[in-house]
Amino acid sequence: MRFTVSQLGEVALLRRLLDRLPPTALPVGPGDDAAAFTVVPGHLVLATTDTLVEGVHFRREWAEPWQIGYKALAVNLSDIAAMGGRPTFALVALGLPGELSADWVDGFYEGLEQCARQWGAFIIGGDTVAAPVMTVTITLLGEVEPKKVLSRQSALPGDLLVVTGDLGASAAGLEELERPLAAGSAARASVRARHLLPRPRIREGRILAGCGGVGAVIDLSDGLARGAWEIASASKLGLEIYADHLPISRWTREVAERHGKDPVEWALYGGEDYELLFSVRPSEYPAVRQRILDACGSPVSKVGTVLSAEAGLTLVRGGTRETLRQGYEHFRS
Amino acid sequence: MRFTVSQLGEVALLRRLLDRLPPTALPVGPGDDAAAFTVVPGHLVLATTDTLVEGVHFRREWAEPWQIGYKALAVNLSDIAAMGGRPTFALVALGLPGELSADWVDGFYEGLEQCARQWGAFIIGGDTVAAPVMTVTITLLGEVEPKKVLSRQSALPGDLLVVTGDLGASAAGLEELERPLAAGSAARASVRARHLLPRPRIREGRILAGCGGVGAVIDLSDGLARGAWEIASASKLGLEIYADHLPISRWTREVAERHGKDPVEWALYGGEDYELLFSVRPSEYPAVRQRILDACGSPVSKVGTVLSAEAGLTLVRGGTRETLRQGYEHFRS
Repeated sequence: MRFTVSQLGEVALLRRLLDRLPPTALPVGPGDDAAAFTVVPGHLVLATTDTLVEGVHFRREWAEPWQIGYKALAVNLSDIAAMGGRPTFALVALGLPGELSADWVDGFYEGLEQCARQWGAFIIGGDTVAAPVMTVTITLLGEVEPKKVLSRQSALPGDLLVVTGDLGASAAGLEELERPLAAGSAARASVRARHLLPRPRIREGRILAGCGGVGAVIDLSDGLARGAWEIASASKLGLEIYADHLPISRWTREVAERHGKDPVEWALYGGEDYELLFSVRPSEYPAVRQRILDACGSPVSKVGTVLSAEAGLTLVRGGTRETLRQGYEHFRS
Repeated sequence: MRFTVSQLGEVALLRRLLDRLPPTALPVGPGDDAAAFTVVPGHLVLATTDTLVEGVHFRREWAEPWQIGYKALAVNLSDIAAMGGRPTFALVALGLPGELSADWVDGFYEGLEQCARQWGAFIIGGDTVAAPVMTVTITLLGEVEPKKVLSRQSALPGDLLVVTGDLGASAAGLEELERPLAAGSAARASVRARHLLPRPRIREGRILAGCGGVGAVIDLSDGLARGAWEIASASKLGLEIYADHLPISRWTREVAERHGKDPVEWALYGGEDYELLFSVRPSEYPAVRQRILDACGSPVSKVGTVLSAEAGLTLVRGGTRETLRQGYEHFRS
């Protein structure tokens, strides 16, 4: 027999969710008014929060429940990665339509826990409320040594702008989910997975936190252009981005071609790649690149240069130069 | 000229919100991928999260924007109070319909900051996303000395059950908002304010954290019955509640009478009073009562007794005894 959330009721639902959680050694655990935990002496605590809304950030028909749970935590992990931190504890606030099946919620939690286990985080609290559409707000805490904390404000003129992995794959995956064309192909499976199950760059962030010469670091949730703009704005500097140097996978290019889209636009403005964009002194770049490749197996690519504030923000593509647009705006259609 | 959220756009909206925040001495402040902060050595960190959904938890036509902002934080403060902690930092995740006016959001933030200032918390991060109805998820962090942390699990058979302040006023206020009858009266103003602007019992919680003989503590978000049930369940004990001893203000009784309602039902099952319910050894009760009165000016009232598990949960009213119902269920109508 399948129950809906409203048939099960809040008390039984919370009991099911609490029973799923692995045991923790917390002084006061999940299920009390608040969770209580200790911090490694001398470390900074990191805190970030992200909301996903059904119909805006995900569609239930596009993904398995566990994939939505996995991603909800992964996007927060990406923020901790961009600070050079280790994830520690998560709080999960769910808005649930009453007609949602309790099995669906179970599946969602399975993905959430899978992601937490994989990256060393523990779910220690949350809230469940009734809502007209499903909403997920996860607050993720982390820890970092004070000397290692990474911010967006530390770029210097002359720094290289470097990105991990490749760009545009998530936008390609979204296009394939919205308008499936490349059915059954390896390209389709690859880009869909990139959209549905982003890989947070926790290990890469930890490496960057220990490298000399690394300046500003940000995770790319809204496209490279927006990330670059955020770094320039926080560091009060200018920069230029080389469109022809953007790392774009052959799967992404293949899907773009079938859909008649420009993969460079996806890389710049598509969003949800959750790669790290960072600035680094040119003299340190080879060493940083090698350390990330050795420790994480991840390629990195030079995509731009930090300039003085007067230079503004420029996109160089082929022989032309234009002002870099900011990119995705959550409230504009 | 009045802008909507979608006309203003996310970047300008975030800039407005960030510019409002008071300066903090954080290593990395609001506006980065995550906030970073230090913890007093040896202290526990507390973490709690609560979601309010428009149409479920509040109606925009019932309250000023600042009142909704104030309450969104106050309900989280109440959880920190129930742990014996001091609030420290808050993260604010907003889901905003595009047609909402930016002025409304400004007003909301004003109330949020007013509440934060009043209770010594700092807003250090957040997220704003588009959503079909307004949603607010606040995650509040706090600190507490390890020896002082309060939980729900520490009741003992024979303990008295005691509640701060008075009960049912918030339910009375909700009734007056939904079906206004007592227009212009002092009773109406009083109970509406109790519903719209709950007072978190932070100071009372700190006193309880320092008192000997105090066992389980919980804040009453879903009525006394639910709180009592939670303590019994967490402490694996039984208890009885004396309906005739429940503290109910004369305003609440007056509004109940005009609406033909039973104020005792509101006190037991109405919810949103955000008073503290705690268990205390009978020998320590007079001292605890006096300390809370002296330090906070708050009355406390004995409303029940903790019993062994076999006794179950009983409501004593007049000469009759009945099983105590659990109370409000968020997913049931």
